[in-house]
Amino acid sequence: MNDSLKYIYKVQKELSILGGISGLLAWDQLTYMPKMGIRDRSNQNAYILRYMHEKMISDKFWVHVKCLSKPNVFEKLSIIDKNVIKRLYKDIVKARKIPSEFVEELARTSTIAYQSWEEARRKSRFGIFSKDLKKLIELKKQYCIYIDLPGSDYNSLLDDFEEGMTVKKLQKQFFFLKSRLIKLIDRIKTSKYYNQNKKIKIDIYSQKKICDIIINLMNLPKNRSRIDMSTHPFTTSVGYDDVRLTTNFERKNPLFSIYSIIHEAGHALYELGMSQKRYKYTVISDSPSLGLHESQSRFWENMIAKSKPFWKYFFPIIENHIRKKNKDIDINAWIRLINQVRPSLIRVEADEVTYNLHIILRFEIELGLIKDEIQISELPVLWNEKMENMLGIKPKNDRDGVLQDMHWSNGSFGYFPTYVIGSIYASQIFKKLLFENILSIDKIKDGDFKNIKNWLYENIYKFGRLMTSEELIKKTCGQTLNSNIYLDYLNDKYTNIYEV
Amino acid sequence: MNDSLKYIYKVQKELSILGGISGLLAWDQLTYMPKMGIRDRSNQNAYILRYMHEKMISDKFWVHVKCLSKPNVFEKLSIIDKNVIKRLYKDIVKARKIPSEFVEELARTSTIAYQSWEEARRKSRFGIFSKDLKKLIELKKQYCIYIDLPGSDYNSLLDDFEEGMTVKKLQKQFFFLKSRLIKLIDRIKTSKYYNQNKKIKIDIYSQKKICDIIINLMNLPKNRSRIDMSTHPFTTSVGYDDVRLTTNFERKNPLFSIYSIIHEAGHALYELGMSQKRYKYTVISDSPSLGLHESQSRFWENMIAKSKPFWKYFFPIIENHIRKKNKDIDINAWIRLINQVRPSLIRVEADEVTYNLHIILRFEIELGLIKDEIQISELPVLWNEKMENMLGIKPKNDRDGVLQDMHWSNGSFGYFPTYVIGSIYASQIFKKLLFENILSIDKIKDGDFKNIKNWLYENIYKFGRLMTSEELIKKTCGQTLNSNIYLDYLNDKYTNIYEV
Repeated sequence: MNDSLKYIYKVQKELSILGGISGLLAWDQLTYMPKMGIRDRSNQNAYILRYMHEKMISDKFWVHVKCLSKPNVFEKLSIIDKNVIKRLYKDIVKARKIPSEFVEELARTSTIAYQSWEEARRKSRFGIFSKDLKKLIELKKQYCIYIDLPGSDYNSLLDDFEEGMTVKKLQKQFFFLKSRLIKLIDRIKTSKYYNQNKKIKIDIYSQKKICDIIINLMNLPKNRSRIDMSTHPFTTSVGYDDVRLTTNFERKNPLFSIYSIIHEAGHALYELGMSQKRYKYTVISDSPSLGLHESQSRFWENMIAKSKPFWKYFFPIIENHIRKKNKDIDINAWIRLINQVRPSLIRVEADEVTYNLHIILRFEIELGLIKDEIQISELPVLWNEKMENMLGIKPKNDRDGVLQDMHWSNGSFGYFPTYVIGSIYASQIFKKLLFENILSIDKIKDGDFKNIKNWLYENIYKFGRLMTSEELIKKTCGQTLNSNIYLDYLNDKYTNIYEV
Repeated sequence: MNDSLKYIYKVQKELSILGGISGLLAWDQLTYMPKMGIRDRSNQNAYILRYMHEKMISDKFWVHVKCLSKPNVFEKLSIIDKNVIKRLYKDIVKARKIPSEFVEELARTSTIAYQSWEEARRKSRFGIFSKDLKKLIELKKQYCIYIDLPGSDYNSLLDDFEEGMTVKKLQKQFFFLKSRLIKLIDRIKTSKYYNQNKKIKIDIYSQKKICDIIINLMNLPKNRSRIDMSTHPFTTSVGYDDVRLTTNFERKNPLFSIYSIIHEAGHALYELGMSQKRYKYTVISDSPSLGLHESQSRFWENMIAKSKPFWKYFFPIIENHIRKKNKDIDINAWIRLINQVRPSLIRVEADEVTYNLHIILRFEIELGLIKDEIQISELPVLWNEKMENMLGIKPKNDRDGVLQDMHWSNGSFGYFPTYVIGSIYASQIFKKLLFENILSIDKIKDGDFKNIKNWLYENIYKFGRLMTSEELIKKTCGQTLNSNIYLDYLNDKYTNIYEV
């Protein structure tokens, strides 16, 4: 038993070390790598991912985990070991369904597809990307055959990002959400404020200053994290004490810069909060799903940093930066502005309400692609039609339509839904915090997030992957994924802001 | 035969991929890594280095290489394959002398020692570093026992950086060099210009502008390289098309910034020049030694960018940046200034002449440490005594004395001599270029380096590791390592500049 335990902890530590290396390769690729470095990087990525996969599915590792899973052995294990073994068993069973060559091929194809997607997007011509996209979808279908979860094929893709999530569950939530969101948007459109929207201007220097102040407020430790620039903001861990966020100040939309950094800082706080000793270098030391991870970023971005109490504290602090180019703005106008609802073409620039429709659109398309109900060649037209149906606007070109996101070029099918799942979870956490009086307006308007951060640590961060997200949210907030709570939150907030 | 070839090329490619990853880990550690990331980075470094070592010494790899080395098989190989096999055979024999655990222990100890060195240097207290240094020296002695080259133990350390170099050869060159350099310095001190030295001031902005212009002039491809900041400038390859240089503009000494970037660009041109297809992903695709690598940086730094023809072209271009804070300087004064000889405490800031004495001092100390003729505790005092004997000046504290360089904390014993070897090789290459009329003053004063770069490619870069450095220099310049040529170069140059 002890030899087996020793061995499985050794392998887990190796996987953790390799995971950090893989994180660095990805971070560097998106921040500093010279353009021509891509070929070598593709080899490096594919090599490390395949090697990790081979470690995971090695017979020796499997034998030890199986041995520790035998009832008479298992019952003698410590609670931590029991959890580690249960988790590993499930992960290995899944990983062993996938041949190593397939992992490598997928990694390599993604790197190439990312390049053709970039070119296609730059030139706004879907045709440049379609061949690689087709290949990726074929690989993903093959992946579904390997994993072979019950129900829809797409379940096998979903499960990678959101363990236990199914098409059936999602469709139920999304169907409801979609119709209710469209109604909410229609109602907002009747508001007297709807057409009073202003464009806000904040110069890059002030954007940076504002972001610095917010990051200090959120208390992101400087010696354990860093912020760089990339086209699309993201967060990744290179080590337990080395979390990398990126942002982008170049856009014309200053709110994008400010809310991106808050969003990523939410992810980073979660990553940094998981480094506790008990689970370090084990399979438990991770988030249970992308949806839960996303709940942490959305919570800070939308529930905290777009709220009135937050700006009661924060507006006076950054007022001079805002007023430089927007002289006559007051706090109420500012709050309406940052919470402005308006159908738009680009997902990453969408407001909190319409954002969800962007995701539901992608979910429906992905499902169709995997089910072979949609042909690749139809995609640009279909995309535009769906945009018109759901949001009432239509992209003028592929760049602002089907080519806007990098996810598919990455092979990340089944990923998009986690953005909405994250928002739903965030609203459930928000409700719980209000109920427990943790989210007291007094504290937030004093710029004090200590209680919130402690609560998040005690109720989310510290559990790592001990449970699935659904189990964790149920335990913490009393219910599983519930879009009703999210809709209540949105309705409350926006009928109040728009006075409708 | 074909299976063996296929296998050994596969392993070489893997080693090359892993080498790039290891390069990225090192680059990131010295540029962007958050401070607390060091523990994870230490694990990551040690893991990759050990894994590479295990690949290198694996029985299967060795069996295939041995099989291809058998005379009846070997003679049927292509010329490239023959070279690859010869090279691999030698490398594997050496690597198989070192246990994997030792590689990992050395990597781990170095990372920790680097930290204690940093602290010791910051606080200028050698005692903080001495324990880790002792451990490293013990490991290095053990390493010499493993490698066990004939002659001095130190030969086994030298050989890692400068294949085939021995204490005997070096002592012969250095003995001669040391006495002649001290004489040259004494002669320079008699010059009427010796005490006319000026301090030059160039603001950071102008330093950056000047560096940009020089880098453009050297034609470093932007899509295959990048420049960042680090405490100590260095160059490393992350891939064949991904070479990273660093520099530092923070110092009070603007010449340091300018000449650092030229130095590193010399290394980078060599690295980028080795990416030719024939040897890609093989053991040949590397420089034969650090000394030869250093010859490429020293050549650009000292022979080109400190020469009169270079400044005839370049001075008018950057004159406005120089004159901003140094109004009355002309080209002759400028050339004397950048070639100013003056004993100083810090190696990396030393001039071309006294620099060599800094290295000879370190070589003598390292030799004594490995031979057990010097005790660790004596080091600070011994260092200062040697400085006084060779350069006539004495450090006031450990920071400016024994603690100034990071090399020992890295475990890099036997590394320092390659700096002087590089300068000697550079002078031999310089002589050859003058002789062949490639280094025509007309071209350089037109800012045209094409001929030089072509020559370096055809006579140095393209050979990779096909020969040892000594073999390559002999083939290219007609003689092996020859400090006479270097001394002639220094005497010519400095008696001319100082009119002595």
